[in-house]
Amino acid sequence: MNFSNDLDPTKKVVAVVGAGFGGLKFCKAFRSPLAETVLFDRQNHHLFQPLLYQVATAGLSAPEIAQPVRTIFAGQLRLSIYMDEVEAIDLSGQNLVVDGQACHFDYLVLAVGAVTSYFGHPEWEQHAPGLKSLADAGRIRNDVLQAIEHAEAEIDPVALRRLLTFVIVGGGPTGVEMAGAIADLTKHTMRRDFRRIDPAQARIVLIEAGPRLLAAFHPTLSERARRDLTQMGVEVRLNTMVRGVRAGEVQLDGEILPTDNIVWAAGLQAPPLLAKLPVPKDRAGRLQVAPDCSLPGYANVFAIGDCVALKDAKGLQVPGVAQGAIQMGGHVAKIITAELDAAARKAPVPARKPFAYFDKGSMATIGRARAVAQVGPLRFGGFIAWLMWLGLHLVFLVGLRNRLAVLLQWFYAYVVYRRGARIIWSQKVDALPAAAVPPR
Amino acid sequence: MNFSNDLDPTKKVVAVVGAGFGGLKFCKAFRSPLAETVLFDRQNHHLFQPLLYQVATAGLSAPEIAQPVRTIFAGQLRLSIYMDEVEAIDLSGQNLVVDGQACHFDYLVLAVGAVTSYFGHPEWEQHAPGLKSLADAGRIRNDVLQAIEHAEAEIDPVALRRLLTFVIVGGGPTGVEMAGAIADLTKHTMRRDFRRIDPAQARIVLIEAGPRLLAAFHPTLSERARRDLTQMGVEVRLNTMVRGVRAGEVQLDGEILPTDNIVWAAGLQAPPLLAKLPVPKDRAGRLQVAPDCSLPGYANVFAIGDCVALKDAKGLQVPGVAQGAIQMGGHVAKIITAELDAAARKAPVPARKPFAYFDKGSMATIGRARAVAQVGPLRFGGFIAWLMWLGLHLVFLVGLRNRLAVLLQWFYAYVVYRRGARIIWSQKVDALPAAAVPPR
Repeated sequence: MNFSNDLDPTKKVVAVVGAGFGGLKFCKAFRSPLAETVLFDRQNHHLFQPLLYQVATAGLSAPEIAQPVRTIFAGQLRLSIYMDEVEAIDLSGQNLVVDGQACHFDYLVLAVGAVTSYFGHPEWEQHAPGLKSLADAGRIRNDVLQAIEHAEAEIDPVALRRLLTFVIVGGGPTGVEMAGAIADLTKHTMRRDFRRIDPAQARIVLIEAGPRLLAAFHPTLSERARRDLTQMGVEVRLNTMVRGVRAGEVQLDGEILPTDNIVWAAGLQAPPLLAKLPVPKDRAGRLQVAPDCSLPGYANVFAIGDCVALKDAKGLQVPGVAQGAIQMGGHVAKIITAELDAAARKAPVPARKPFAYFDKGSMATIGRARAVAQVGPLRFGGFIAWLMWLGLHLVFLVGLRNRLAVLLQWFYAYVVYRRGARIIWSQKVDALPAAAVPPR
Repeated sequence: MNFSNDLDPTKKVVAVVGAGFGGLKFCKAFRSPLAETVLFDRQNHHLFQPLLYQVATAGLSAPEIAQPVRTIFAGQLRLSIYMDEVEAIDLSGQNLVVDGQACHFDYLVLAVGAVTSYFGHPEWEQHAPGLKSLADAGRIRNDVLQAIEHAEAEIDPVALRRLLTFVIVGGGPTGVEMAGAIADLTKHTMRRDFRRIDPAQARIVLIEAGPRLLAAFHPTLSERARRDLTQMGVEVRLNTMVRGVRAGEVQLDGEILPTDNIVWAAGLQAPPLLAKLPVPKDRAGRLQVAPDCSLPGYANVFAIGDCVALKDAKGLQVPGVAQGAIQMGGHVAKIITAELDAAARKAPVPARKPFAYFDKGSMATIGRARAVAQVGPLRFGGFIAWLMWLGLHLVFLVGLRNRLAVLLQWFYAYVVYRRGARIIWSQKVDALPAAAVPPR
């Protein structure tokens, strides 16, 4: 089909690629009656990525951190949503190619996020999954739980040790959260569940190439995180490079770590879709956009969020976090709204403001009742920071209708016809035999 | 490993295969201090199967109807649990073969349930999944939701119709519940979610070979179910045989139903594990056990639940429902307890009582606020029956700690170190490339 065919031809077409934090914010903020918006995403859901590690460690189930995109925008006029993969972008011709068909755009917003980077070693992925999607989280959860089940029936002490060793590569927020959650899971949740093995004997190793954890935080909080994790039984290895990953082992400088459980939280890069775009990129493939978030040479095309490398109006690199994507989404929505409005009134095109990032603060959870947080000059650790983290995330999830709704989800489903779990969640559907994928 | 090696050699070994309703009840009821119990299941969870159709239609998420077996029995002494598939049963040698290793038993309880039967056409399975496991439910849910997403981007009217046609084969409780839930999903839940298509236009066809739905219920309730489903927009086809299933169509006598969505709820049979046992079986491969649930010729081996064909003490066929399995599990636990006790006291072996089934009643839900129920001579339909159904299932789930726990699941996980979602749920892991399965 031609995706633009059904749209009102008197209106401009704004295409949005990606329903993450940036794309979602853009679509919520952009309500111009002068345009039709077309949103594409490969998934049918928006994912609350900051809690993905909870799904990977069996703390939450998938529907609790995901929301169907259609539900979020139910009733929003002039917004068409397609669960489809954008295959190519023709910037000059102003067309997207989706499922072999064209979608013309007047404006384009690229909010495609990031994918896991193995720094030139894609073959490591099969042994060391990243954590970017529900499928990733489901895979890690199954692997972790199955390893412990297999350990219960394993008599070879070497194989047993390998099954009960968990290596997390990367000491950023995701790595810290995964290490802490696996420690909680094995050393507390599962404590009484097994007869032959003691899951509390699990070895958990967190590997960071740099000199400290949570490099984006103040050094005192990095040290606090290291100390807390160590107390929880996690081996923290700083200044340690991973040289290789194979079935059953992680190779370090002069050392082999035998393990059947590796989680890769070490790096991100821009998705392959952006590789062919004729615009400057940084080493991770992220688009180096103009100060207004537009692509150099293509004023009608914007990129926002994790797929972007941008020093903002204050000269600071905008961090690859939800707040950055959300604020960029709002910024671009304002620009396009104003320009459409000016064009309709035949007024001069208003000047575009450069994007300015407002840092609301950062937090990372470490484990049960432990977190670190910084807000401007203030820094918090331990239980206080964890309460802040809990409160903030509960508020965010309530915003997604996923927290309070869970309370009465089942009864509620019958009363108002909502179903909280309407999430397409499959593990590696692409790896299934063709027969299992419904024909188009 | 030899699974019996770690056990107390002064005690008898009772092996249990299957952690469904029957196996679970047996292990709960069997607490003899004179024996070690070893429980095997391929999954790490007990599944509340009566609500599986809710997972398949996105009403509930997997962890809400499943409970880790280890959690259920946490702290129960003399019970070993292995997540492993039993490969063979040597009745005379009193050994199970599990993962290539032996497990000797003094008593054996087979509670292996049933699998979907395609009546000699296993090739239909790829186009018409059954509904027996969380993986099945996940597959059906993904297929149903993806079909509707694809419909939104489909312009060919014939292909569009096929995407929005749902055929359920089999008019028993599962078929009736699936048809009603898909009607609720498409005609209510998703009503406002799409722009180009109207999910309420979905065609839902329920096919039953016999003359009425819910053959195990009183005919007035069968008729009530038919009428309710018809009002909800489901086409009910009675006396209709399915002659073939292929990609994109169901073949009936002299008619082709074009559809991309087929659910098979037409038949069950005993699992392949039982095929080689030298005991009489019925046409569906179910074991024809003695009145005490033991296998003819093997007094120390019992079979219970859906894998059994038994006319009970009153001469009535025990139905393949949870109640039947649960009552058999309790019955066998009493027999083995008494015999071990007598042996320890060197008393004569007590006579075994024949199993007597107590019918507590039956119910099936049809849709939002509609159900049918019968308790002895009493029959209920509509809202009253649905309230009964709701209440009973809520009570059951509370029994599993899965309903109330959901309310404060997240906070609770931190307070008492429990995680409600600790369920291994994978879609067709066997179809994944070998690398994705952790090495043993």
